[in-house]
Amino acid sequence: MVHPKLSVRGATSPASPIRRLMPHADFARSRGVHVHHLNIGQPDLPTVSTMRAAYQRFAEPVVAYSPSQGFAEYREALAGYYNGLGAAAGGPAINADQILVTTGGSEALLFAIATACDPGDSILVVEPYYTNYRGFAHMLGVEVVPVTSFASEGFSIPAERVRAAIRARTRALVVPTPGNPTGAVLTHEALAALGAVCREHGLFFIVDEVYREFVYPEDGDLPEVAPSVLGLPDLTQHAIVIDSVSKRYSACGARVGCLVTRNAYFYAACLRFAQARLSPPTVDQHAAMAALETPAAEMRGMIDEYRRRRDLLVDGLRAIPGVSCPTPRGAFYLVADLPVDDAEAFCTFLLREFSLEGETVMMAPAEGFYATPGKGRNQVRIAYVLGRERLARCLTILRAGLAAYAARPRSAARSI
Amino acid sequence: MVHPKLSVRGATSPASPIRRLMPHADFARSRGVHVHHLNIGQPDLPTVSTMRAAYQRFAEPVVAYSPSQGFAEYREALAGYYNGLGAAAGGPAINADQILVTTGGSEALLFAIATACDPGDSILVVEPYYTNYRGFAHMLGVEVVPVTSFASEGFSIPAERVRAAIRARTRALVVPTPGNPTGAVLTHEALAALGAVCREHGLFFIVDEVYREFVYPEDGDLPEVAPSVLGLPDLTQHAIVIDSVSKRYSACGARVGCLVTRNAYFYAACLRFAQARLSPPTVDQHAAMAALETPAAEMRGMIDEYRRRRDLLVDGLRAIPGVSCPTPRGAFYLVADLPVDDAEAFCTFLLREFSLEGETVMMAPAEGFYATPGKGRNQVRIAYVLGRERLARCLTILRAGLAAYAARPRSAARSI
Repeated sequence: MVHPKLSVRGATSPASPIRRLMPHADFARSRGVHVHHLNIGQPDLPTVSTMRAAYQRFAEPVVAYSPSQGFAEYREALAGYYNGLGAAAGGPAINADQILVTTGGSEALLFAIATACDPGDSILVVEPYYTNYRGFAHMLGVEVVPVTSFASEGFSIPAERVRAAIRARTRALVVPTPGNPTGAVLTHEALAALGAVCREHGLFFIVDEVYREFVYPEDGDLPEVAPSVLGLPDLTQHAIVIDSVSKRYSACGARVGCLVTRNAYFYAACLRFAQARLSPPTVDQHAAMAALETPAAEMRGMIDEYRRRRDLLVDGLRAIPGVSCPTPRGAFYLVADLPVDDAEAFCTFLLREFSLEGETVMMAPAEGFYATPGKGRNQVRIAYVLGRERLARCLTILRAGLAAYAARPRSAARSI
Repeated sequence: MVHPKLSVRGATSPASPIRRLMPHADFARSRGVHVHHLNIGQPDLPTVSTMRAAYQRFAEPVVAYSPSQGFAEYREALAGYYNGLGAAAGGPAINADQILVTTGGSEALLFAIATACDPGDSILVVEPYYTNYRGFAHMLGVEVVPVTSFASEGFSIPAERVRAAIRARTRALVVPTPGNPTGAVLTHEALAALGAVCREHGLFFIVDEVYREFVYPEDGDLPEVAPSVLGLPDLTQHAIVIDSVSKRYSACGARVGCLVTRNAYFYAACLRFAQARLSPPTVDQHAAMAALETPAAEMRGMIDEYRRRRDLLVDGLRAIPGVSCPTPRGAFYLVADLPVDDAEAFCTFLLREFSLEGETVMMAPAEGFYATPGKGRNQVRIAYVLGRERLARCLTILRAGLAAYAARPRSAARSI
């Protein structure tokens, strides 16, 4: 018998830094400790009322395939959403045939990277970056090349730094705005500056806009909704939008997203990939279509709640000695510097060795969000997806955990 | 400005032969002709009652992510299903940690091919084959190498022919049983013979068993349920099962499938890919779990209905001059030889130029199910997913269409 061998791609695929401490969390639970999850972007807020009602209303006799590009009616409704947002302002209106419904934003990313890159090509990402970009790139044999952004600069993305990172086989720049994990929001001008680099070098500009509505302006310094790359009229052939209902409507388990592009060739290639997987989920699409009818007040309530949490969290973190973070301007994440050498060891300590009155917190070590070795070692990503009372409790636990970690015997630290 | 260029993989990705005549079907409808769809495996039978009830019952406040590998409770229930089937007979029992819940069987195939193959490697498929194997392989930079099966041999798969096709970079054999598009069912012995080839050459044996229950024995010459590769005790490291709720429960739009393997390394690699895409659909998983409680009589009714349709269709086709097909032993497809030179031209003719009392039929030209150029040119795949009355009507239309096609002026034929 000859043992079958995994592919190199399979054997070396990266584990999710967001999920890989899960066994330690299981260990915490096994020793009777309650774990507050700040590590994963799973909001606690209820799924919007419109979607919940749509599931219960579903009564078709056959749960059939939808078209590979998604239901026409849903794509029409989405076109209305994009045009209504003003996201498309400055460019021609978006129509339904420029929207490909996908199984979450994840699949839109997979199709976009596959359509932009051959094996051996590369994409530019701005680190700290949404780590699953690397997972999809890896699956497709595509290299991830980082451009570093810095907390000290509010995680802004200087166009010059992007330009300097372009190599012969660079095919696309992939950027989220509002940013995960940084919470940074690109202004229209910042997007345009990055777009100009993409135009100059023939790169696709893949912009992950799933947190579009979660923006926290101060005195009108940002628009209510994050600027979209669809609003750049000279980028019609370069711009690829990745979108999802997961965060906007607090419905991560409804695997519905979409890819939007005015580039008809790009769209056609993605559609062929989409045909192979047949269709996105049918019932979830019905719910996602209903989501577009969510009352504005309900959406507003959600956004305001995230803002209040952000304020509580940022103030609370800065009050802990040695902890710092830029103020996130959107989404529901932040990256904080901790007074530790190795945030992963600290996060592991919190789960395996520490508890405050039977509770602890789980955070995502930020090192996994950097492609440059060694970067982000003292940082964590925190998702503010828990209610304010629980967030306040988490701050108390974190403060106590840092004190206990600093005071621990060194030999114990080695054995972690 | 530099125009961005699609990747070669994007520009050359194959269109689905099942769906690519769709524009002609749209044209038929635009000229007022009703199209009977025999081209796509979308059953008309109602989704099982258990699943439909589960959607309406769903009332959780948050449609949250599930674990990347699927809900533990669902995986436990699936393990019970596999062990109860006797599918695992002969091997150790299947446990929940050997089951990875995926977004349809499609995603299970994507993960399996990615884990078996690096770019430039190849998989063996038995043509005529399920065409989406090629779509996934193409996306992953993997070559599809065909082993031909023949209608005259009942589309059986001689192990010797598979062995002869193995090359240095062949990593896996991918086979569906019951077969799509052929309806051929592999006996335990046939599976074992193919498995022995995989053992000898260190290939993964990826077996697509989504039609497992749709088997039509004659005098006990086949078991009630198609033999599973999980029942081969010496293939624990090689065997990868692809499964899905789509066909079994008539729920194609519920995108829930799974990958089953006793190879822990293979599983771990697939799980890392699964983490990147976060989770399979949550509400659909609840419905899929309910599906496992479907009354046996309801399942039996569905299987018996497909059998009656098969009988009607096979008899009807053989009664048309020049048409022949082997009797499919499972699934709900067959491949028929038609008395035409070019089945794609004929199928296009049916949609664009022909109608019988305002109706026509759409079939999938089988050439797209072959990787060897020129093979299958006179064949079509027919899915028997319409009621018997409509199937009988389709046979009448097909007979009339063949006659009209034979009688058409040659110049008109050229212009198709």
